[in-house]
Amino acid sequence: MTVPTHLPYGGVASFARAPLVQPDGDWHSDVGVLGVPFDIALGFRPGARFAPRALREASLRYVPPFTGLDGETRLGGVTFTDAGDVVLPSLEPELARDRTTGAARQVRGRCRVPVFLGGDHSVTFPLLRAYDDVPDLHVVQLDAHLDFTDTRNDTRYSNSSPFRRAVEALPNLVHITTVGLRGLRFDPEAVAAARARGHTLIPVEDVAADLAGALARLPSGKNVYLSVDADALDPAVLPGTSSPEPDGLTYGQALRLLAETARRNTVVGLDLVELAPNLDPSGRSELIGARLIMETLCEVFDARR
Amino acid sequence: MTVPTHLPYGGVASFARAPLVQPDGDWHSDVGVLGVPFDIALGFRPGARFAPRALREASLRYVPPFTGLDGETRLGGVTFTDAGDVVLPSLEPELARDRTTGAARQVRGRCRVPVFLGGDHSVTFPLLRAYDDVPDLHVVQLDAHLDFTDTRNDTRYSNSSPFRRAVEALPNLVHITTVGLRGLRFDPEAVAAARARGHTLIPVEDVAADLAGALARLPSGKNVYLSVDADALDPAVLPGTSSPEPDGLTYGQALRLLAETARRNTVVGLDLVELAPNLDPSGRSELIGARLIMETLCEVFDARR
Amino acid sequence: MTVPTHLPYGGVASFARAPLVQPDGDWHSDVGVLGVPFDIALGFRPGARFAPRALREASLRYVPPFTGLDGETRLGGVTFTDAGDVVLPSLEPELARDRTTGAARQVRGRCRVPVFLGGDHSVTFPLLRAYDDVPDLHVVQLDAHLDFTDTRNDTRYSNSSPFRRAVEALPNLVHITTVGLRGLRFDPEAVAAARARGHTLIPVEDVAADLAGALARLPSGKNVYLSVDADALDPAVLPGTSSPEPDGLTYGQALRLLAETARRNTVVGLDLVELAPNLDPSGRSELIGARLIMETLCEVFDARR
Amino acid sequence: MTVPTHLPYGGVASFARAPLVQPDGDWHSDVGVLGVPFDIALGFRPGARFAPRALREASLRYVPPFTGLDGETRLGGVTFTDAGDVVLPSLEPELARDRTTGAARQVRGRCRVPVFLGGDHSVTFPLLRAYDDVPDLHVVQLDAHLDFTDTRNDTRYSNSSPFRRAVEALPNLVHITTVGLRGLRFDPEAVAAARARGHTLIPVEDVAADLAGALARLPSGKNVYLSVDADALDPAVLPGTSSPEPDGLTYGQALRLLAETARRNTVVGLDLVELAPNLDPSGRSELIGARLIMETLCEVFDARR
Amino acid sequence: MTVPTHLPYGGVASFARAPLVQPDGDWHSDVGVLGVPFDIALGFRPGARFAPRALREASLRYVPPFTGLDGETRLGGVTFTDAGDVVLPSLEPELARDRTTGAARQVRGRCRVPVFLGGDHSVTFPLLRAYDDVPDLHVVQLDAHLDFTDTRNDTRYSNSSPFRRAVEALPNLVHITTVGLRGLRFDPEAVAAARARGHTLIPVEDVAADLAGALARLPSGKNVYLSVDADALDPAVLPGTSSPEPDGLTYGQALRLLAETARRNTVVGLDLVELAPNLDPSGRSELIGARLIMETLCEVFDARR
Amino acid sequence: MTVPTHLPYGGVASFARAPLVQPDGDWHSDVGVLGVPFDIALGFRPGARFAPRALREASLRYVPPFTGLDGETRLGGVTFTDAGDVVLPSLEPELARDRTTGAARQVRGRCRVPVFLGGDHSVTFPLLRAYDDVPDLHVVQLDAHLDFTDTRNDTRYSNSSPFRRAVEALPNLVHITTVGLRGLRFDPEAVAAARARGHTLIPVEDVAADLAGALARLPSGKNVYLSVDADALDPAVLPGTSSPEPDGLTYGQALRLLAETARRNTVVGLDLVELAPNLDPSGRSELIGARLIMETLCEVFDARR
Repeated sequence: MTVPTHLPYGGVASFARAPLVQPDGDWHSDVGVLGVPFDIALGFRPGARFAPRALREASLRYVPPFTGLDGETRLGGVTFTDAGDVVLPSLEPELARDRTTGAARQVRGRCRVPVFLGGDHSVTFPLLRAYDDVPDLHVVQLDAHLDFTDTRNDTRYSNSSPFRRAVEALPNLVHITTVGLRGLRFDPEAVAAARARGHTLIPVEDVAADLAGALARLPSGKNVYLSVDADALDPAVLPGTSSPEPDGLTYGQALRLLAETARRNTVVGLDLVELAPNLDPSGRSELIGARLIMETLCEVFDARR
Repeated sequence: MTVPTHLPYGGVASFARAPLVQPDGDWHSDVGVLGVPFDIALGFRPGARFAPRALREASLRYVPPFTGLDGETRLGGVTFTDAGDVVLPSLEPELARDRTTGAARQVRGRCRVPVFLGGDHSVTFPLLRAYDDVPDLHVVQLDAHLDFTDTRNDTRYSNSSPFRRAVEALPNLVHITTVGLRGLRFDPEAVAAARARGHTLIPVEDVAADLAGALARLPSGKNVYLSVDADALDPAVLPGTSSPEPDGLTYGQALRLLAETARRNTVVGLDLVELAPNLDPSGRSELIGARLIMETLCEVFDARR
Repeated sequence: MTVPTHLPYGGVASFARAPLVQPDGDWHSDVGVLGVPFDIALGFRPGARFAPRALREASLRYVPPFTGLDGETRLGGVTFTDAGDVVLPSLEPELARDRTTGAARQVRGRCRVPVFLGGDHSVTFPLLRAYDDVPDLHVVQLDAHLDFTDTRNDTRYSNSSPFRRAVEALPNLVHITTVGLRGLRFDPEAVAAARARGHTLIPVEDVAADLAGALARLPSGKNVYLSVDADALDPAVLPGTSSPEPDGLTYGQALRLLAETARRNTVVGLDLVELAPNLDPSGRSELIGARLIMETLCEVFDARR
Repeated sequence: MTVPTHLPYGGVASFARAPLVQPDGDWHSDVGVLGVPFDIALGFRPGARFAPRALREASLRYVPPFTGLDGETRLGGVTFTDAGDVVLPSLEPELARDRTTGAARQVRGRCRVPVFLGGDHSVTFPLLRAYDDVPDLHVVQLDAHLDFTDTRNDTRYSNSSPFRRAVEALPNLVHITTVGLRGLRFDPEAVAAARARGHTLIPVEDVAADLAGALARLPSGKNVYLSVDADALDPAVLPGTSSPEPDGLTYGQALRLLAETARRNTVVGLDLVELAPNLDPSGRSELIGARLIMETLCEVFDARR
Repeated sequence: MTVPTHLPYGGVASFARAPLVQPDGDWHSDVGVLGVPFDIALGFRPGARFAPRALREASLRYVPPFTGLDGETRLGGVTFTDAGDVVLPSLEPELARDRTTGAARQVRGRCRVPVFLGGDHSVTFPLLRAYDDVPDLHVVQLDAHLDFTDTRNDTRYSNSSPFRRAVEALPNLVHITTVGLRGLRFDPEAVAAARARGHTLIPVEDVAADLAGALARLPSGKNVYLSVDADALDPAVLPGTSSPEPDGLTYGQALRLLAETARRNTVVGLDLVELAPNLDPSGRSELIGARLIMETLCEVFDARR
Repeated sequence: MTVPTHLPYGGVASFARAPLVQPDGDWHSDVGVLGVPFDIALGFRPGARFAPRALREASLRYVPPFTGLDGETRLGGVTFTDAGDVVLPSLEPELARDRTTGAARQVRGRCRVPVFLGGDHSVTFPLLRAYDDVPDLHVVQLDAHLDFTDTRNDTRYSNSSPFRRAVEALPNLVHITTVGLRGLRFDPEAVAAARARGHTLIPVEDVAADLAGALARLPSGKNVYLSVDADALDPAVLPGTSSPEPDGLTYGQALRLLAETARRNTVVGLDLVELAPNLDPSGRSELIGARLIMETLCEVFDARR
């Protein structure tokens, strides 16, 4: 007898219909999902606070396991758990960061691959703090912007600074590869600081001109945290983001970059940030975001087999 | 120590943050919530399939207990459980009705007051079938339309017919009071059939002209199932509905009608139907729908004290 | 055998499913509908050009005849014809006015009650020119604004001036009653000119304070052209209009004013203008506009029985 | 003298301003258009019921004949007729299918190339039934999904199954070519069944990698029914569709596939399905859908000269 | 010669086309406008950061002086200056508050009546700090919520607490009158604290039942700061606000309350907060907000004549 | 000390935070900006009247100078001034054209590179009239459409005709290069007239197939006026435009075409037209439009160094 299943709009939406738990509960799974609905660190159009719920709803179109056109099964037997959202205070950013780090540590301790649903990009700093014990930690960041600025509009914790704060706080965070960079304006101090640390900066035009070359510059054999800013993608593909920049990555390019990273390294965590569902009435932004997460997980677990 | 709580946009949204269960699980509570995301029986603008999830999200602004300006506490100690949504087949209406009746029976057996989140108004027929054992069952229906039509556009199960089918199927359903009727066109056969059965039909202008008189015509001392069609309310108040009609009930009038019914009768169940969140980008339709449910529950449990 | 009928979203939308004709074709009917999709004379938010089509679609929820809750039938046997839209040149306002007058004359000659679907309010001037042969012509205008301004922003033909131009061009247009006036700013010259001609100006607060008194000031025993500006209604009721003003007429007040006018006079034509469907994603503006037209026609033809 | 013509927003919208007829009327033309506003068989976001009217409105920007930049004229002398929409019952799917097949047969009998405006993809099954007399019938389907599933969510007639039902019902339907396939999940039983019948399955990456190779795999010298699912196109190009999948066909690729099919075969009918105008406030989805239909017709009639 | 003027959509939008200055510049006028685009202290739906610009654009429909239907001129000779927005840091709430107080002081020093455009309601605290020298300061607050909560979700500076912080910081702030209170839930500690201070709390039902009685409870002969929360108004009237509550004030009631306050007291400042233009695609929220400001200024300056 | 700066949503929006002046004021700068909010000459969907203000707001994300990833600074020291919008009469097209030409002349006389913000494409004719004294004037037009039609829908001044009127009025306008042409329908008379004058017509497929070849066909060593129609870009990139056509220019292609023109010629002015912000709720259309203007200016001033 077949157990009937919900259509995507039916049922309370946990991520991929995973069981709902508390971050500090008694659970273990392959994938653990944690939402961080925090968007008061961005400087333009808000809405990323709505992304965790929107991504959960969208994930219901992509509940594993998956069988491809070629008959191959992916994510078979991989278990998912949804640890809900970090309970965030309003207007107390430092407390919010501490709670985020705490919950992320709890999730990390209970699953093989945490998936974090932002929020704006500032959340990646407290998320990375939960990885302060990972030796030789690398970050692969898909992003239009460098997000390595020291201070912007009088704050050190905006969505322009997560990686700057992270390298300050985590001596083990040895290297960052940023792919998809573009736009008219860069913060020269941030670029210089990233270059001084030896970071790898790959503009989007390098990806478009020579994808294989860009893939070759990704790390290999490392512990990698993947951080995907929704604005890495072209806004025609994913319009729901605070600060879109034209001529971004195609979906296929983003997936190739994530897949290659997954194949060559050990992915220790993944976030998707800066997705603002309220800015895209077509609803495709969260659908594409959810699918990108799921396909990345396919690659991560394919690589682990 | 205070346990921190989510802001309304945080966390997976069960109704009023109630525990999530299966309809046939091992649970008991005062209020049990069941969604019925079915909207293929309406003949105009779809979207009521999205209402259960939207009402759950909106309910997070109204998590009991409540303290009024006068210091009185309401819904204190009243327990809530969320049984999720009926698992619905697509395009198999009869099977959908059977599953709806089955899940409603399960919820009824486990709580004192079931709250059903539609869906279009056709779902009230299978929901009422779960009440076939209630002696002397009355319905109080807030609605712009009579919904007592025998056949419309070649079907007997559209959202114009739930109460016609219900009185045919349930000999114990002895009376229906419909409040809020208005519009240019009525089905004469339906009006005659309702009148032949002695139903109470209260047009919206009677409510506007003499609210006390309208309240006096509500049943008293009965087992009452409340069925609230979103289009009973004025579309200025609640625009998100398939078939809006101007000059509807104000929020206050609707609440007074529901409160009076609750005070004078035993409410055995409650549904809110025809709310289409996709038709109201301001998002107030689901907020007002959720608050109307919650205030009605206040009245029901105030009356039971 | 019952002939199956379309649901409102089915079929090509003529007004109330009336036969489609050319204005100068060989047809005769009780009601003749003509669209005037012209909105370049307004000074704020465009979109009234989309109203004729939107009103036709919305009218499909209100296809006569109608039976009320009391069993009375309305518009039974009344025939409708849809003469399509005036073919308008872009950016040649004078030619547009001439074509509008021409088509309106053709429609007038073929039906008892023409219904004109604007367009911004400037179209009422060329429409009224088609009534230059009606003795003792009166206008009843529902409107937030007086629209009797001589010149605005360097033009004499904007949507602020239709009635000024009309009284200049039509010696037979002896009187205008304007109901629903409100707002911070009036053109003193226009008010003085209207008063000098003896026009009746009824502010919305007079309607709210004393509806009967307002009704008593309407003309009686005259040939009346009804001109309904969508902004006469409260924007909570009908948000889709270029220049909304708060505290407008309720739907019920507007209908009472139109009904009383119809009962006491001979309605020679009717327009609904300034409805901008693009400004109301809930879609209720055109539904309410179409229903107001249809209920007004009920009153007109009830009065003629 | 030039006859004045409407701007696209003017006039009642029949397809390409063609005369309006009944499907069973006395008419004959090169192209016959029939709408099928049925969308209750899909399992995600509704709205395709609004597509026939939206495509008619959009078609008014593309009224033939056309002259290209090179001076060549297309669709000159080709006649169009619009047979309106199938009159659909609500919630009686079998009756809806029968009426659709009936109306499609009537249209087929009166024109050289029927154009069907969906509706969700389930309508292609009853449409194809009107072709049960065409020897050696082939289908070329542009689609992200295979739509060859036997049963989904307890129904055999959803928008995932039209071609499965069609090959069961029509022995003359000998082959299907599906182009644009992509996504995480395929139904293994459906893929196996399609392959067992020798269907041609062309994933979107094959089109991107080698368009000429993909074109070479299209049928040749056959009677071909073209079925275009809006989600075959990339959602950046056409966002208004129920179930978008990233990395779809470009407009140019889709047109090349349709053109090549038209050049090498006899096109016996064409449908465009799964377009949901309500999901794209920019309005470009229906504009692009209408233009794709019209350009395909250019190719069909070019090929017939 | 008439100087041509812009239509409302033309020209860069300063408030009521007033000259643009710096808060600390060399200017003096009757009215001085200052925007505070700060919305990170609210706990639900963001967007009030967009209100200052939206209100400026909307104000262009209401550029004084005004002539009423009765020929009376208002705001004649009253001068306006627009001091732009406070330059706000992102994510540094304390610094934001300090800058807000500083700019407000500068504006206060240069005009008779400052008008502040929020922002969420938290900005009223730093705005009121600029009035720490006003003897016997009263506040009249139009609001659905009390906003006198000590701590919410771990912060003392959210949009629920501005008046609590203000009375702590300003010994001269002796009394607050809050009108429009409604909703299911009040913070008992906040209500008790307000009552202990002798504040006047007027629920919306008191206004609806007895407007004259409510007006009589307003202060008289005081220095009054007016604080208008957009959610004081009914959401049917003004849907664009973060936390709408049904059955709110009508526009007319709000205006009467503001007018009576202005007539009987000396208005020392005015703010309009919690208006979220992004939540109202009809655009009427900012139009109504701007008009409410302007009509309140009419009353203030009428009272000063 | 760092002077604090506004976030993009803060402050009154002049273009790139430039000082606001009158067109005929006493000012001089490198770049002078003038808005022309005129959109009544288009024949489809209005909204370009809102573009000047939307582009100013969007420009606040792109305030020069810019530092690239390579450390190079652009637009350093280049001064900007914003001359506001032309004061336009409503419904008096000829007067609107005269005022546009007048203001454009004033701006031209006060800056090195005027930037004009449309408005529909009809405004380019009166703008070009301000260049009647430039010897050997060339135009480079990015556009899906030729806009060289003599008469359309009974007018000679629609947005289909600006360049036809311009070549008639300006003997010095010797050549036009139009890039991005596509679509089903061209006006044969317009194509023939353009070809007879030796204009360069480059269809979009030529750009896609051979960008270098297309670049080679651009003028060299001339005085060039750049006119960018928003529909030149692919509607997936920029959906907010009246008449979108699929398969348009990518952002990168458009920029390369503009950059190459700037490098090889003297750019005497630049307009961006047909951008309709109301048709793109994602808001990316104006962001991309503003960035395209700013990057073009980078190229223009790089070329002048």
